[in-house]
Amino acid sequence: MASKLSVKRGLNSRLNLFEEELEALVQEATLSAESPAMSLARGVLLSGGKRIRPLLAILCYEAAGGKDVNDVMNLALSSELIHTATLIHDDIYDQSRFRRGRPTIHSSHGLPHAIIAGDYLFALGFAKGGTYDLDVVDLIASGCTNVARGELQQFDHIGDLSTTPEDYYSIIDGKTVAPFATGAKCAALVAGASAEIADLMFDFGTEFGRAFQLVDDLLDLTGDSEMGKPKGTDVHEGKMTLPLIHALTTLHGTEREQLADVLNNFSDDRWNELHSLLEISNSLGYVEQLIRNHVDRSQEILSSLPQSEARDLMSEVALVSKKRRI
Amino acid sequence: MASKLSVKRGLNSRLNLFEEELEALVQEATLSAESPAMSLARGVLLSGGKRIRPLLAILCYEAAGGKDVNDVMNLALSSELIHTATLIHDDIYDQSRFRRGRPTIHSSHGLPHAIIAGDYLFALGFAKGGTYDLDVVDLIASGCTNVARGELQQFDHIGDLSTTPEDYYSIIDGKTVAPFATGAKCAALVAGASAEIADLMFDFGTEFGRAFQLVDDLLDLTGDSEMGKPKGTDVHEGKMTLPLIHALTTLHGTEREQLADVLNNFSDDRWNELHSLLEISNSLGYVEQLIRNHVDRSQEILSSLPQSEARDLMSEVALVSKKRRI
Repeated sequence: MASKLSVKRGLNSRLNLFEEELEALVQEATLSAESPAMSLARGVLLSGGKRIRPLLAILCYEAAGGKDVNDVMNLALSSELIHTATLIHDDIYDQSRFRRGRPTIHSSHGLPHAIIAGDYLFALGFAKGGTYDLDVVDLIASGCTNVARGELQQFDHIGDLSTTPEDYYSIIDGKTVAPFATGAKCAALVAGASAEIADLMFDFGTEFGRAFQLVDDLLDLTGDSEMGKPKGTDVHEGKMTLPLIHALTTLHGTEREQLADVLNNFSDDRWNELHSLLEISNSLGYVEQLIRNHVDRSQEILSSLPQSEARDLMSEVALVSKKRRI
Repeated sequence: MASKLSVKRGLNSRLNLFEEELEALVQEATLSAESPAMSLARGVLLSGGKRIRPLLAILCYEAAGGKDVNDVMNLALSSELIHTATLIHDDIYDQSRFRRGRPTIHSSHGLPHAIIAGDYLFALGFAKGGTYDLDVVDLIASGCTNVARGELQQFDHIGDLSTTPEDYYSIIDGKTVAPFATGAKCAALVAGASAEIADLMFDFGTEFGRAFQLVDDLLDLTGDSEMGKPKGTDVHEGKMTLPLIHALTTLHGTEREQLADVLNNFSDDRWNELHSLLEISNSLGYVEQLIRNHVDRSQEILSSLPQSEARDLMSEVALVSKKRRI
């Protein structure tokens, strides 16, 4: 097991490489004819964010045997540009006022500018992705079409208390998991890895992505100011997260009726009621167990890969996602 | 000069090929996991539209020496998918209720669905474009980033009566002309043409695109129910089209003041006033002359290409754009 210090150093060296590339791209666009579009987008692009997608792209590439990290940099950029494009557009219809500590583009500049800024980053992201072979391009596109599919399915289930765990996994496998899974597989393909390794990477991305989304679901209910996610956004929007779905399935009689009433008529003064019900059904504990399962599976998958520094760092990144909560 | 019948047959044979490809793509997506996204987008994709972008992609490819039209089909699809994505997003912030005779997605399904449907078509369009070499991918992306730049610049000039003809050309060279110019050049590159031919195609697309946009400006003022464009949309939105810019530059004294008042406080009962002023300044005649100039230049460019059926059809398409009005 690597020491904490060497893990931190290992992750930071990749993150720094990526930030340099991203800043160079932003700088180049700012000095070009695209400047008006980039000046809108640069704030959200450069104001932090966890950079988990580009970090995993780099680590998966190395763990799959890739030797020159420059070769995977366009994939890393593509993942972050497309992810940020999606965030800008999501924030419009989620009516979010802040993102990464800054006013969202639609709240500072209005709806048209936010739509256009997102479209602009999509184009940049696809241009970077388009530098690779067709199988990689198809995977990137499939990540995006799955996001669209998952988000549409999520809308269909807003406020739908009969949403099943299968519906839930179908939604998150689109909106969150697909970009992680396809991104990890792309990285392996860019490294010239075998189909077997590429599929293992896809599976790793799937388990990691599911754990990531489940942690997000928990944070929405428990809140964590350090993570920068405001508490209760999903509940207020009527999004059916897995803890709620579990509680609705587990509770019976008056408790089930009370939960339905809380969710149908939620307001901040009903937090205590909601938490009491989630405690009775042990729904947070249930979801914590699922997170452990997904992270454990991600570790098993990694154990099939040849030992490398990058593999160990991937393992740490996956474990950290568990530690966010547990 | 080709007969009208042979021109019609020549254009229709290409358009039919394209429609078959597009319908196959829509059908495939409808039967796949992407179905929810495609079911939103298929209406606007399949309900007509002039298909000028894919038509020009095919003709430019052939005129540049391309032998197998299947090779350019992904470019043709890419151009129409990305164009339709842009339309869906434009319609949101233009608050358009109808497109191609159907309710727009945001009016029938709401804002989030329209944003997602557009993002979905962007992903499909880039996936098709990503099947080509890097120079083509970069040109497609540059078409998109220029659209973003032009649209943002257009917003900056909404209601700005000091907008210059240079501002105007900068705006339309982004929002309308760039995809025509880059698309035509891409087609030549896909055909394996020389850099010289590719640049000629870019210039053809530029002249064609400018004529196309100027005709659109005129139609906004004169109306043409056959073209399906409602009259006065631009005027109501405060968009500074070239006829208005010309009139503002040409008129003086009380006429200039009256025109400023009409534009600042426009309503449908002021059409006669506006038309009288445009007649005094002969602004429609001026723009008609510019359209003739751009079309003439497009014909000169074509005359540098080797004779071919496709070249003659391109010439006819460019001439028809002039005939839309004159």
